[in-house]
Amino acid sequence: MTVVCLPDERARQLVGAVDGLTVVTWDGSGPEPPHLAETELLVGSYTRPALSPGQLAGLPRLRVLQVLSAGVDSWLQVLPPGVTLCNGRGVHGPSTAELAVALVLGQVRDLPRYARQQADQDWFDGPRESVCDQRVLIIGAGDIGSRIQSSLVALGAAVTLVGRAERPGVRSMEAVPALLPVQDVVVLAVPLTDQTRSLVDAEFLSRMKDRALVVNVGRGPTIVTDDLLAELRSGRLRAGLDVTDPEPLPKGHPLWSAPNLMLTPHVGGGSTGWPTRAYALVTAQLRRFAVGEPLLNVVT
Amino acid sequence: MTVVCLPDERARQLVGAVDGLTVVTWDGSGPEPPHLAETELLVGSYTRPALSPGQLAGLPRLRVLQVLSAGVDSWLQVLPPGVTLCNGRGVHGPSTAELAVALVLGQVRDLPRYARQQADQDWFDGPRESVCDQRVLIIGAGDIGSRIQSSLVALGAAVTLVGRAERPGVRSMEAVPALLPVQDVVVLAVPLTDQTRSLVDAEFLSRMKDRALVVNVGRGPTIVTDDLLAELRSGRLRAGLDVTDPEPLPKGHPLWSAPNLMLTPHVGGGSTGWPTRAYALVTAQLRRFAVGEPLLNVVT
Repeated sequence: MTVVCLPDERARQLVGAVDGLTVVTWDGSGPEPPHLAETELLVGSYTRPALSPGQLAGLPRLRVLQVLSAGVDSWLQVLPPGVTLCNGRGVHGPSTAELAVALVLGQVRDLPRYARQQADQDWFDGPRESVCDQRVLIIGAGDIGSRIQSSLVALGAAVTLVGRAERPGVRSMEAVPALLPVQDVVVLAVPLTDQTRSLVDAEFLSRMKDRALVVNVGRGPTIVTDDLLAELRSGRLRAGLDVTDPEPLPKGHPLWSAPNLMLTPHVGGGSTGWPTRAYALVTAQLRRFAVGEPLLNVVT
Repeated sequence: MTVVCLPDERARQLVGAVDGLTVVTWDGSGPEPPHLAETELLVGSYTRPALSPGQLAGLPRLRVLQVLSAGVDSWLQVLPPGVTLCNGRGVHGPSTAELAVALVLGQVRDLPRYARQQADQDWFDGPRESVCDQRVLIIGAGDIGSRIQSSLVALGAAVTLVGRAERPGVRSMEAVPALLPVQDVVVLAVPLTDQTRSLVDAEFLSRMKDRALVVNVGRGPTIVTDDLLAELRSGRLRAGLDVTDPEPLPKGHPLWSAPNLMLTPHVGGGSTGWPTRAYALVTAQLRRFAVGEPLLNVVT
């Protein structure tokens, strides 16, 4: 018997039966189901925290951990040795890319100003900027970054994509310092790794143009919060953040009241249609697992 | 001597000299320059009203009127018989498409709600929708509509484009009533014509799904204001309007205080880089005019 564990009954319904696999459901809370200890492939819950090392130690036969988000940092910290980790590349990509574009356009087109004018019944058109006249640097050349690129290129922006390694159409991280001074917008769509933690610090920000915009839809700790705060408060830079460090942002944190900032509470992924996309991926993954085919979205 | 009239000195500088043409500048205000009456091609000002019929009567040799906006309704009303009208297709297209996408994403991703939460220091993520799970109908298959389509398709939306005539990838206006009931978003990117005036009336709106979104970046009178107001006030529909009827919206007009509405004061085009794009088109057009080649962007 090959046991796989899905997070909940809704997941089981969306996945259906897969030949050769016995499905149990558990998300780390509540009583443990029969055969849980025999689990060989575990699908982590999208909405609950990662399992603890103690809980994972209770799954000695675990070989594959499937996560439903693109970022895997919280699970990577507890991953037992020898277990293959697969991420949810593509599940939240469209929705997260969309929020990045919403934050870019919201700031560039000054939607908060027009909201104030609407409240004041003030029809003032005045000068206005547009990304079609701007340069955009996207750091992160995965599904999310590529979608942001396509969406903004369609609107006329001049977009440069940056990935881990140089390849046609993608610049490497080493090129970033030289690219920064001419960018109007910098979008961060990278997972949290040793290379991306604190990537955007005072020095990085100091290379950016006056009035340039930083948008982050990846992970909060990619930006050094205090360094960004200084630039927002001086009015030199603008930002759009869907992720912060710390997160959730506690009441009274200075980011809440920072000027020149559009802030959303980590709502890039997880939009209404995500379970359909997530469990289509899980279904495909289970079929591959059952017959021993190479798995999709292997991170490590 | 072939005289062409540009609106101002800035235009003259951006266009430069064109062999065979004598350039005068006038925008309908101020003293008339020498040789104005001999004008054969007139470039209308983007920022000032159309010339009056009396002013145009003073240009008896006028053969071509070049307008710098995509919409030509105000000039069409005064166009002397036999004069060729050319529009500014492409000049404001990227910027206007961008504002349409900004209004779609602003409403779908609920940016006004997150702005209120930011002011209240409230980190509440809650349920959220995404265009990647939605159907979008774009009425208007020109430069603006096509750019909106590409930008939203990159984000995963299922987009249907509607134009004047059916062609591959474009549905006709006749198909709209049957398409409406399944759309989450309807974007209007059409000029004002007999066909589009009052297109979106109570009956059109009644075919739309509950909570669907109407976005208009074309011309205000395409929507019957009172009919949309009724749907916004009942909470059944949402809207994002960059153009209104009347325009500018006077203080106290009920649209200002309508719920479920994101309103911008006709700022789709005219963004910072427009003169560069506009006078690149005018330069190309003058060269064609000087040598008798077919003109670009002929409307009528």
